[in-house]
Amino acid sequence: MSKDKSMYKISKFVAPEFIFGVDSIEYVKRYIKNFSLTSPIVITDHGLLKASWAKNIFKQLEEINIEYCIFDNITENPKDYEVEEIAKVIRSCNCDSIIAVGGGSVIDAAKAAGIMCTNPGTIRDYEGIDKITHPMPPIICVPTTCGSSADVSQFAIITNSDERYKMAIVSKSLTPDISIIDPKTLITLPEELLISTSLDALTHAIESYISLGSSPITDMFSLKAIKLIFETLPKAAKDPKNINYLEDLMLASLMAGLSFSNASLGMVHAIAHSIGGYKDIRHGTCNAILLESVIDFNYLYAAYRYDKISESLGYEIKDLNEVDRKKILIDSIKELKRKIGFNITLKDLDLKEEEIDIIAKHAVNDPCILTNPVMPTIEEVKEIIERNI
Amino acid sequence: MSKDKSMYKISKFVAPEFIFGVDSIEYVKRYIKNFSLTSPIVITDHGLLKASWAKNIFKQLEEINIEYCIFDNITENPKDYEVEEIAKVIRSCNCDSIIAVGGGSVIDAAKAAGIMCTNPGTIRDYEGIDKITHPMPPIICVPTTCGSSADVSQFAIITNSDERYKMAIVSKSLTPDISIIDPKTLITLPEELLISTSLDALTHAIESYISLGSSPITDMFSLKAIKLIFETLPKAAKDPKNINYLEDLMLASLMAGLSFSNASLGMVHAIAHSIGGYKDIRHGTCNAILLESVIDFNYLYAAYRYDKISESLGYEIKDLNEVDRKKILIDSIKELKRKIGFNITLKDLDLKEEEIDIIAKHAVNDPCILTNPVMPTIEEVKEIIERNI
Repeated sequence: MSKDKSMYKISKFVAPEFIFGVDSIEYVKRYIKNFSLTSPIVITDHGLLKASWAKNIFKQLEEINIEYCIFDNITENPKDYEVEEIAKVIRSCNCDSIIAVGGGSVIDAAKAAGIMCTNPGTIRDYEGIDKITHPMPPIICVPTTCGSSADVSQFAIITNSDERYKMAIVSKSLTPDISIIDPKTLITLPEELLISTSLDALTHAIESYISLGSSPITDMFSLKAIKLIFETLPKAAKDPKNINYLEDLMLASLMAGLSFSNASLGMVHAIAHSIGGYKDIRHGTCNAILLESVIDFNYLYAAYRYDKISESLGYEIKDLNEVDRKKILIDSIKELKRKIGFNITLKDLDLKEEEIDIIAKHAVNDPCILTNPVMPTIEEVKEIIERNI
Repeated sequence: MSKDKSMYKISKFVAPEFIFGVDSIEYVKRYIKNFSLTSPIVITDHGLLKASWAKNIFKQLEEINIEYCIFDNITENPKDYEVEEIAKVIRSCNCDSIIAVGGGSVIDAAKAAGIMCTNPGTIRDYEGIDKITHPMPPIICVPTTCGSSADVSQFAIITNSDERYKMAIVSKSLTPDISIIDPKTLITLPEELLISTSLDALTHAIESYISLGSSPITDMFSLKAIKLIFETLPKAAKDPKNINYLEDLMLASLMAGLSFSNASLGMVHAIAHSIGGYKDIRHGTCNAILLESVIDFNYLYAAYRYDKISESLGYEIKDLNEVDRKKILIDSIKELKRKIGFNITLKDLDLKEEEIDIIAKHAVNDPCILTNPVMPTIEEVKEIIERNI
């Protein structure tokens, strides 16, 4: 052997079967039949019941004479008690499977309820990595946002309502059985959500690329997703019903999801989980607010990788010093936000000193911090939060 | 909606769980435990029994007190009667799972034997797409070549020994449960096989990129695999024990496999299956021989995509006419072959006119022809074969 030193760390990759493309939503009934399912529950939210997507699923089930239950009472940042409630409904209806139609909140709640259908205790017992022991009922996902990628990931994020932080539940068992990813569903997504979920996907892609758990496979997905979002999001913000833009944003979200599900994430998500659980604010927005300040903090610990992102976006950086290289990436994100009219900060939350303390403490205990290029102190996390106020 | 026309066709993607990296072979015992398996059969070949890889697996099984059977009598281009024989051994030993350690022949035979453990009839009944009705026993794959990617694919290729052609069996059920991909296993691969299996991977990547079944996800894998093989194979041919080159060839093979398993292939494979089944010659070699003449034939039907390959290899082609653009790609493959000393043709097979007839007839019936950019006539296939004699 000429060299004993391997270039790549050992890495694992898990992905669900998925179908991607406009009109793929029509495949739901085919999978119900393929999996020989007889009594699904459709989990969704009020907004989606109004849009036609959930109704499309009901119609398909009726076409193949499948009786189904509906649970549509899901809120943003789903809470632990909601999960228990859904699991109760699933059990009382004797459902054999779950169809989740919605964004990250719906899909995370559905996955977590799936855990509680077959595993003992409460959902809080499953916080952390690989705690699920019994297989869950089959889950078919139909994502209707271009951000969370819960439909392809091994994650479910549920708010602990007593302690007011988001628990990350991570397990291969949480990978759905099939994800049916139809970009057409984004047509009815309010523009504000199109932007915040796309920025969520961008954060997934950047954080998974920088992650200590990245691999050559996840790297490829991350870089491609970053490029697609930078190219497409400004155009989509101007013309949000253009199906070609929606296709590329949905594709970017899928790629970012396959990446972070396997490479995990970093400090942006650790803090966003903590703030989002405490203040019940939108996850994608929270990620987008924190992104540049975390890059500013992390840069020196992962300069080579951050620079690769800049290069993949077409910037010539090889003759620049580190300060300027960092600035190019941060400025490119600021410029993207400017183009799409995103100017939210943490100011409106009116966070008090003792609240920032609590948030920072939860952030350093979030599983996502484990793959951040450097382990921050609680003080450093507080400083990052304070820079955004 | 500003545009009604979607950019992407509906596509499906299936991949097994996989682990990639030097020394990942040591994970076999962990998966035996995770899957609660108690009596695996280890399927391998004589050569691998001599190399230490099969022994490594035996040792791991002994460490966790698992009794196992061994089947090591697999030949290149595995035959239908061999598959039936392995299935008989699996049943008589009451094995609950299969560990396949080897190249494409071993893994294809193991997968096909898996079908026969739980499905009625003979293996010939399962030729074609989606014929398998009963789930197979769990299969753990440890690939030891960098070409077939049978360890991640939905394909098993088995020779019909009466009619002397290769049957393509294609089904999601043929995706292994876990593939453990350790580039270190390539250290013991004879150089000739390192080259022919790498060229097999190159053909997978090119054909899946040109395939009518390609998708944005498979495209990404294909282009990256092509680039890696062009960059690495000449270096590996000179220094075939350099672990870093072996890592990149194994990675390219994995990526090409994930691509073709989902996008399918084209005319090179259709003809190579047909010749390989008739003359029992090495599959990767046969693909490599045919590659340029099929590109020459196909080019005009997929010029845009072939050009994308040339561009991804760094060629400036936008000012060239089609004849010159085609020549650049074909010449780059010829140059790659020259660098690695590959100069085999079909001459040595001494094919007779009536044999070419039979081969061409089987080729136009191979499932891989369905995704070729154009459907060739039998006469056209004969001409392509004759150009390589």
